[in-house]
Amino acid sequence: MKTFFALALLALATPACADGLVENVNGITLDRDGKVIRFNAMLVGTDGKVTELLTKKEKLPKQLDFRLDGRGATLLPGLIDAHGHVMGLGFQLLTLDLSETNSLAEAQAAIKAYAAKYPERRWIIGRGWNQEKWGLGRFPTAQDLDAAVGDRPVWLERVDGHAGWANSKAMEIAGVTAASKSPPGGRIELAGGKPSGIFVDSAADLVGKFVPAPKPLERDVALGEAQKKLHSLGITSIADMGTSMDDWQSYRRAGDAGWLTVRIFAYAGGIDNMVAIAGPAPSPWLYNDKLRLGGVKLYLDGALGSRGAWLKKPYADAPGQTGLQFLASAEIRNLMVRASMDGFQTAVHAIGDAANAEVIGAIEELSETYTGDMRWRIEHVQIVDPADLQKLGKHGIISSMQPMHQTSDRQMAEARLGQERLNGAYAWQSIARAGGKLAFGSDVPVESADPFAGLAAAMTREDAAGQPFGGWRPEERVSREQALAGFTTGAAYAAFAEGKFGSLTPGHYADFILIDVDPLLASPRELRNAIVKETWVGGRPVYKNAAANAAEANNNGETR
Amino acid sequence: MKTFFALALLALATPACADGLVENVNGITLDRDGKVIRFNAMLVGTDGKVTELLTKKEKLPKQLDFRLDGRGATLLPGLIDAHGHVMGLGFQLLTLDLSETNSLAEAQAAIKAYAAKYPERRWIIGRGWNQEKWGLGRFPTAQDLDAAVGDRPVWLERVDGHAGWANSKAMEIAGVTAASKSPPGGRIELAGGKPSGIFVDSAADLVGKFVPAPKPLERDVALGEAQKKLHSLGITSIADMGTSMDDWQSYRRAGDAGWLTVRIFAYAGGIDNMVAIAGPAPSPWLYNDKLRLGGVKLYLDGALGSRGAWLKKPYADAPGQTGLQFLASAEIRNLMVRASMDGFQTAVHAIGDAANAEVIGAIEELSETYTGDMRWRIEHVQIVDPADLQKLGKHGIISSMQPMHQTSDRQMAEARLGQERLNGAYAWQSIARAGGKLAFGSDVPVESADPFAGLAAAMTREDAAGQPFGGWRPEERVSREQALAGFTTGAAYAAFAEGKFGSLTPGHYADFILIDVDPLLASPRELRNAIVKETWVGGRPVYKNAAANAAEANNNGETR
Repeated sequence: MKTFFALALLALATPACADGLVENVNGITLDRDGKVIRFNAMLVGTDGKVTELLTKKEKLPKQLDFRLDGRGATLLPGLIDAHGHVMGLGFQLLTLDLSETNSLAEAQAAIKAYAAKYPERRWIIGRGWNQEKWGLGRFPTAQDLDAAVGDRPVWLERVDGHAGWANSKAMEIAGVTAASKSPPGGRIELAGGKPSGIFVDSAADLVGKFVPAPKPLERDVALGEAQKKLHSLGITSIADMGTSMDDWQSYRRAGDAGWLTVRIFAYAGGIDNMVAIAGPAPSPWLYNDKLRLGGVKLYLDGALGSRGAWLKKPYADAPGQTGLQFLASAEIRNLMVRASMDGFQTAVHAIGDAANAEVIGAIEELSETYTGDMRWRIEHVQIVDPADLQKLGKHGIISSMQPMHQTSDRQMAEARLGQERLNGAYAWQSIARAGGKLAFGSDVPVESADPFAGLAAAMTREDAAGQPFGGWRPEERVSREQALAGFTTGAAYAAFAEGKFGSLTPGHYADFILIDVDPLLASPRELRNAIVKETWVGGRPVYKNAAANAAEANNNGETR
Repeated sequence: MKTFFALALLALATPACADGLVENVNGITLDRDGKVIRFNAMLVGTDGKVTELLTKKEKLPKQLDFRLDGRGATLLPGLIDAHGHVMGLGFQLLTLDLSETNSLAEAQAAIKAYAAKYPERRWIIGRGWNQEKWGLGRFPTAQDLDAAVGDRPVWLERVDGHAGWANSKAMEIAGVTAASKSPPGGRIELAGGKPSGIFVDSAADLVGKFVPAPKPLERDVALGEAQKKLHSLGITSIADMGTSMDDWQSYRRAGDAGWLTVRIFAYAGGIDNMVAIAGPAPSPWLYNDKLRLGGVKLYLDGALGSRGAWLKKPYADAPGQTGLQFLASAEIRNLMVRASMDGFQTAVHAIGDAANAEVIGAIEELSETYTGDMRWRIEHVQIVDPADLQKLGKHGIISSMQPMHQTSDRQMAEARLGQERLNGAYAWQSIARAGGKLAFGSDVPVESADPFAGLAAAMTREDAAGQPFGGWRPEERVSREQALAGFTTGAAYAAFAEGKFGSLTPGHYADFILIDVDPLLASPRELRNAIVKETWVGGRPVYKNAAANAAEANNNGETR
């Protein structure tokens, strides 16, 4: 976190009695109607907010506090991740990350190497494995893990956070045996009548609760790492989906100490956390609009990969299974009412078509009582029965979706659902056409937080390799402007923050990034490879890409 | 809390570019050596801090933001309560208060009237009863309570917070029967082999855990009431002894919303709360030095009234009983180390002579490792073996004591201990002579928070009725200056706040009160009846006594 303290000091040392100018940029922002506004320079007030957008012909003021030469770079509003897990990202950066492994053998090698590197760790913990990506055709087992590490307990979360993988030592410590029963909302996978080592959804607690909890200092370090990572990717704001009290206390410590630079709009993990953290009403925006607890995250089902998504009809590849319904109809309504009556926004995780139908139905009912500006959110909205799609346009429902999930999941989705149920799958354009509101995010650490990969996926429905050519179910692509809106104005609107950030409008915070491509013109490949040169929050620098800037200085030297 | 919002607005409306002057006052403050400084006027900067203390002859500046005419009133630093329970006071103000009842019959009538007044309350809760004060000669019983209220559960805390009194309905709900066993660190009082209705120390949880927890909004209202009460008594800062996460969240909500005006230095209730609230290190001072979590409160024994204080030899009035030792020697040391290694201050509750000997011994040992400015605190320090008194002067131990406990407890102390053990009882002057550091407080809501009663008790060892004449064990009286120091500089030092408040020194906050008596000259009776006219925190008014000011205006009118 040294960098941030240094930057903070730098910012504090800046005299506070004049404006700043960012000039020589290819400036792009969207207004509240989604219209593109282009500009060449931007004036920033001493309050860290945009004063004016300028085009070439206008006269510049003479007295300036700072003057930043953009050298022709593209300037965008700081990008917003509408659905992420800040501490999850932080711990991913501090623990074993298997998300880049392409086979079980590769994963085993990585686990073994990690355990050897950290002999003092009593537990080996990590996340990011994905048996689908490995082409394993089955879940991995405890024995697979024992082959890598047998002397210490190992506990690894699946990439989607909806399953855990334990070795035999971990199951022994947790006291899991053939006699253990799956808890409600979860499933112990079996192999030969015994626990296989895979624990789906709520069953993961059986082992997870034995993993030593991170210490507060470790949490703070994780937060610092997450913030650094987000800024390096051009992200200035993020919705934290499922904030715990411990998470919140870390955010507050960072705010209290003055090093919180990423804007976090937090959705408490369940009603109990909501009440414990915020009490009788949403918190105010704190630390110059850096932090707020404004809503609650509720889970209605699991995920598709672990067959926890709640479907109307059985899984195509698991006849008889329809996934997990975490809450009965009355329960989800009760929880949504509990939050709404105190003014908290609700964000309900729904992946399967049954889950989406259920939450849409609940919103329809509650809308009769709660007639204000509720901004009901559904998180993921992955598989929707086409019969229900039109309803997403009603009641101002916000579909908070993650473009990268589509490219990562498409083959799995085909296997899980069969072709006939894919008409409402990751149906961005259909939802937009139905009048639904889109907010885009990454679900980091489930996917990379990189918003440029998300932007490219949103406008192409092709993966990084350009597959499938022309896009998967390409009718659901969105325009470049829609994609950009999803990561800026749409994400801000979804958090009641449209007056604060997401658009470089006079009076809004000067949260911006400088990048080397124009997202409205670049090829998807160029966009995926975009280089973030600088990231600014509230008129202050929070990230400078030393390598990019050095290279540019060199180039400039060479060409002169 | 309306008043506070109004005051806050008033303060905000004040232009912020000039100094303020408080003039025509009988100003008194102590410097860090305890020396009395007198002054007639005080300049306050726009930062809410003292700029200069003036005497009559000095020239006053002309450009002033505000000018407050003290009309000859005595101006003191805002008083500090070195040991209180902020939320306990707030809930006392919102629930049934039995602390003024003088007999069981009076209490029964109050309980009955309260239950009739609030028919919608599912539980009748309250506190403040004291069978000693009633002259009952025994604990009250469930039957005594049933006679007042039988249809609803009733649960009433003893004045010292160390015992609870339940009616039959409450015991029924809690499932307490003749088969129930006293938990470690607690005692179920029996009558005829059955629970009598009295639950001492940890046994109180048996019933207490069934009492519905207050809602966050109720907590916030309670905090507002407590703050208002404290300011009306001339208190501007308080040590909160045993802060829970819920308490802390209320304090933060008040700070976040801008209406926290009392300075709270919080000691977390146990290590778990300490870690949950502050994490890896004490919190910074927040909200312009209004709130800090700087230490941890640990309990080593119970209280004298309920015979929970841990004594070296049996109680004089209960042969065979030596009270309750909550923590073994190794345990208290482990907890103190756990706090100290992360820089938290420790404040250990010790009432009996065995408890005090134990914590003094622990401090002696730990001082070998922790050689910095630790400011080890012992809370109450009520009964100390004279053999141990000298040790309190070592290692900079702070004796955090409550003068009112002496006047309230003296007869009970005589009964519990017999004369021979009283040489080290409430031994303020002996501790001061031994080089110990005194910090005075009230233990509100165990006693009234009124610091003027505390000042009078400290300098007289007489109760409000002047009994016993000349003072109880008068050799332990302290001087007027020592008494004032205990509620100002001493209390600030005990919280590492001596550079911030407690003394009206240039650069310290302008926390001050205007009262109608001079505490260095007034009779004890006058001091007990002192009228607080105004209370200011950080150069802003937080309390104005409308009645006193109106009466004074009238008087001025008549005499002109």
